[in-house]
Amino acid sequence: MDERLNRQLDFALEIDKEKNIFRQTHLSNHGRNENDAEHAWHMAIMSYLLKEYANEKVDIARVMLMCLIHDIVEIDAGDTYAYDTEGLKTQKAREDAAKERIFSLLPEDQKEELIALFDEFEASETPESKFAHSMDNLQPLILNNSNGGSDWREHKVSAKAVYGRQEKTKLGSEKLYEITDAILQEHIKKGNLT
Amino acid sequence: MDERLNRQLDFALEIDKEKNIFRQTHLSNHGRNENDAEHAWHMAIMSYLLKEYANEKVDIARVMLMCLIHDIVEIDAGDTYAYDTEGLKTQKAREDAAKERIFSLLPEDQKEELIALFDEFEASETPESKFAHSMDNLQPLILNNSNGGSDWREHKVSAKAVYGRQEKTKLGSEKLYEITDAILQEHIKKGNLT
Repeated sequence: MDERLNRQLDFALEIDKEKNIFRQTHLSNHGRNENDAEHAWHMAIMSYLLKEYANEKVDIARVMLMCLIHDIVEIDAGDTYAYDTEGLKTQKAREDAAKERIFSLLPEDQKEELIALFDEFEASETPESKFAHSMDNLQPLILNNSNGGSDWREHKVSAKAVYGRQEKTKLGSEKLYEITDAILQEHIKKGNLT
Repeated sequence: MDERLNRQLDFALEIDKEKNIFRQTHLSNHGRNENDAEHAWHMAIMSYLLKEYANEKVDIARVMLMCLIHDIVEIDAGDTYAYDTEGLKTQKAREDAAKERIFSLLPEDQKEELIALFDEFEASETPESKFAHSMDNLQPLILNNSNGGSDWREHKVSAKAVYGRQEKTKLGSEKLYEITDAILQEHIKKGNLT
């Protein structure tokens, strides 16, 4: 087998491990914890269906691919819960090392391309990355909303912390921020979020 | 909330159920059974990375989206194992009913768009759908290969049946069929596939 294809298939096999990285979010109907691969799949489809609400025009293929790969580094670095203040301090160093190891399995041109896309997502400055971040927030929100806000209650997350994170949703989509705000207000009213 | 966004979010929540549809394929390192959402995520990334091997030029955004949605009907219809001859007889009727129910949650224009994409995948006539089928075959193959062919042994699948299915890989990518053939020959030599 030629070297290039060999490397591509090695990478494809390696990322299978993302299916074993579990998040704090639970599936709907009070299901089990969700894993990173499922989360990425869900975000990518949502980005396509909701693209009309992006604040700026987006290249949807880039958004989808960004959604699909944005958590690959967690194969080594693990999932850092959005409200874990201690974990967040070391997150960047852990993810940088993971990024180098995992994407280096690919041929050089594809390594560079995927690292650039990952970095673009992290920087959250382009229309595509801002919209991908809206999806990264909205996808767990709809699951948690369907479960009566149980993920927030379990972790005693404050309304203030949730609103802080959801600021990123607004940068990608004013419209989706509106619905996010309405959902959060409903949970505050019900006492699920304080 | 407006009716259109409401329908889009209902659909987004509904497809969460795809994470509970388990396949016969096992994750690498002799892991648990894989589910449809994970399989679709994996296929979509592989399609992007391996697009240079498609027999014909493909619109990769369409291929990725096709990969992401091609198993949504299994939320109602269940997974039909590629080598389950009884299940295959009723598969189309089960999947048609599921397709109508699930995609009808979306606004009419998106329902039509996604059904057209699903039908295009099923018909396997366009360059995009042929290449997506190559991914549908290659993705479980690399997992099963990494596990020493245990999925074939468990189901007593014959080499003839596997080659029959892999004909579709060839229609999407001669190059990926070559490596598929090499992998299968190796398993036949080792007695994992007879």
